[in-house]
Amino acid sequence: MGPDSSYDAETVAQVGEFGLIDRVTSGRDHSAGTLLGPGDDAAVLAAPDGRVVAATDVLVEQVHFRFDWSTPRQVGRKAVAVNLSDIAAMGAVPTGLLVGLGCSPETPAEVIDELAAGMWEEAQQVGIGLVGGDMVSAQAVTISVTALGDLRGRVPVTRAGARSGDVLAVAGRLGWAAAGLAVLGRGFRSPVAVVGAHRVPEPPYAAGPAAAAAGATSMIDISDGLLADLGHIAAASGVGVDVRTDQLPVPQRLSEVASALGADARHWVLTGGEDQALAATFPPGAELPEGWTAVGAVDEGAGVTVDGREYEGGSGWEHWRR
Amino acid sequence: MGPDSSYDAETVAQVGEFGLIDRVTSGRDHSAGTLLGPGDDAAVLAAPDGRVVAATDVLVEQVHFRFDWSTPRQVGRKAVAVNLSDIAAMGAVPTGLLVGLGCSPETPAEVIDELAAGMWEEAQQVGIGLVGGDMVSAQAVTISVTALGDLRGRVPVTRAGARSGDVLAVAGRLGWAAAGLAVLGRGFRSPVAVVGAHRVPEPPYAAGPAAAAAGATSMIDISDGLLADLGHIAAASGVGVDVRTDQLPVPQRLSEVASALGADARHWVLTGGEDQALAATFPPGAELPEGWTAVGAVDEGAGVTVDGREYEGGSGWEHWRR
Repeated sequence: MGPDSSYDAETVAQVGEFGLIDRVTSGRDHSAGTLLGPGDDAAVLAAPDGRVVAATDVLVEQVHFRFDWSTPRQVGRKAVAVNLSDIAAMGAVPTGLLVGLGCSPETPAEVIDELAAGMWEEAQQVGIGLVGGDMVSAQAVTISVTALGDLRGRVPVTRAGARSGDVLAVAGRLGWAAAGLAVLGRGFRSPVAVVGAHRVPEPPYAAGPAAAAAGATSMIDISDGLLADLGHIAAASGVGVDVRTDQLPVPQRLSEVASALGADARHWVLTGGEDQALAATFPPGAELPEGWTAVGAVDEGAGVTVDGREYEGGSGWEHWRR
Repeated sequence: MGPDSSYDAETVAQVGEFGLIDRVTSGRDHSAGTLLGPGDDAAVLAAPDGRVVAATDVLVEQVHFRFDWSTPRQVGRKAVAVNLSDIAAMGAVPTGLLVGLGCSPETPAEVIDELAAGMWEEAQQVGIGLVGGDMVSAQAVTISVTALGDLRGRVPVTRAGARSGDVLAVAGRLGWAAAGLAVLGRGFRSPVAVVGAHRVPEPPYAAGPAAAAAGATSMIDISDGLLADLGHIAAASGVGVDVRTDQLPVPQRLSEVASALGADARHWVLTGGEDQALAATFPPGAELPEGWTAVGAVDEGAGVTVDGREYEGGSGWEHWRR
């Protein structure tokens, strides 16, 4: 398994664990908050708020990504993006990443270099770095990323604070990764816009802290699909959440792709995962920060509805149940 | 693969991701420092020091453990122990754990329950809990643990501060896990003392912060073997480290096992990994805290020596190079 394209012959086994760690961490710019970076038993990061926000996500080859659909660099970016998005969804600002990486001894070392380059690329979009981790032997490439963040004095925005009467809003792209996956699944490589969205999400990192500052009552990272993830807000908050299709943007580009594939673009927007958009609820009358669009409302019911009715057509993705 | 003993028929796929997360996290006692536990996009932990210490270790089935040699509960304890030991090696006190767990859909759910029970058992030895994580499909059972810790106002003890003239000391057990591995490798299941040491290390958690408080100039967690890990202190500090065999305790029990197997007990003590003991250097004349034993000295040379000479017989373990 693993990417079997035209890489140099040098394998992970030849470079060795310590050589590889050196290759993926040395010569990088660490943030001011990185008090002790890679190379010791543990890293030390500044936590000026006196609290630390932490999230872990694991990506496994053939389950979460395929090297015939994505380059190692794209996989690295995505592995970091899904974690940074979790930090943003609490209203926090990321401070550093730890990476647990498993791969077979026969993996070309260049693949790991490229994975790491992608991770650094995404991390540096928010001004942070890889501060620690572990490298081990494994059959499939397995990437476990832990992101840490700082609340900057704000209350963390959980899934549990939505109240009846609140406005439901989203930030970031919805349905694009699902469209890309559908295209790749049919054997196509374009349009690049949707295929690229599947390969590397573009989470609206700044929208999370902005929503927290604007008084968001609840927030979640949309990784399993809008309706599925709103279900977590509804359950945790003990409310109903209604999505209004007349408010929900369905991009022209997705409609074109859907029509070419005989698919339903709105279904992608409602149920597609992996775009790492954010959904949040705001008190009635609150001014939504830049990048946020109102798409529905919170009511006294239970669960998630679309235009007041149950949505028929499946609503998400749960590991092991497919 | 996976443990195929007499478990209930219910699989991970049948319980589902969210059901399983609920089973391994609900009804547990969280520490006072756990401001937001599992169930949201990220966890929030207190970081009273204003800095956070973080380490990640990954354990893979058939690489780091075998379910025919260890129970899932023992594997869970070990996965947590190796991480907590990294936090101790900085002189910090652990505050919480995040766990990224991969397993196949066919894994009996009870195996995951037991793994989690072992993790909680070890975590609660130091008064902390599992505050977050992720569960995904994977071929082999893969456990990625991230431990966070607090420095309580102390300077982190790195590998880089050893100075010529310092005293070298160790805390915890050395060679026991290697003896256990040798026993298991020959097909035996006893003596229980050494086999148990391979299955679940007993890191001297309190010895790390105690060494920091006593002014330790450098410290490391011994996971690859005493000589191999002292090599990191020698390299990072730019010094030589000499182990004196007349000071180094070789437990009677290990000598007995070695003699039964035709092996060398001192070799296990010098090179055996996975006991998660701690090694540290202290300024000359410093009073060693409880649990610490002087076993050598720091000099102006380079690298690691035993009684002033290079040790012949291999010195450690590096992934991918075996």
